[in-house]
Amino acid sequence: MGDLQEKGGATMPEFMDVHTGMAGITSEGLLEAHNADLAIQDDEKVNFKHAWADPQSGMVFCLSEAPDADAVQKIHQRAGHPADNIYEVPVQAE
Amino acid sequence: MGDLQEKGGATMPEFMDVHTGMAGITSEGLLEAHNADLAIQDDEKVNFKHAWADPQSGMVFCLSEAPDADAVQKIHQRAGHPADNIYEVPVQAE
Repeated sequence: MGDLQEKGGATMPEFMDVHTGMAGITSEGLLEAHNADLAIQDDEKVNFKHAWADPQSGMVFCLSEAPDADAVQKIHQRAGHPADNIYEVPVQAE
Repeated sequence: MGDLQEKGGATMPEFMDVHTGMAGITSEGLLEAHNADLAIQDDEKVNFKHAWADPQSGMVFCLSEAPDADAVQKIHQRAGHPADNIYEVPVQAE
């Protein structure tokens, strides 16, 4: 059976953000973009944890911990790839 | 710096699927839905690894390993919650 994971208390909120229009993205391209986020994420107390990309559809999903969605977007914008949507994901299961 | 994660070779492909219209989803509701997937996932050789939900927007994201996207959808459909979109995510970084 799966486990309930409820984020709360002292932990930082988690966010899933979505980028579209990245068709053809390569492993090297994703890593370069991700590293551009990592290099400046501390400025907004963001922690980008994982990124998943589908080169066919051009969808990219990024999981992060951050104070709020604005902080996530500020880093993505400064790194040159603003997210299309950012969702707080306090309800999780695994 | 982040690490490159390229899925290939003998490993199973990974998929991120997206459900919409789940506004108000609770931790208990997500766990119940996730457990309904886990209970039958072996029938299609799917391994649902994590689910993230945003009760405000109603978005749910599920990460899985599976032979193909059809296998993911078959399990979600049988469990009563077909995905709106399923994306193969061979390109990853963390």
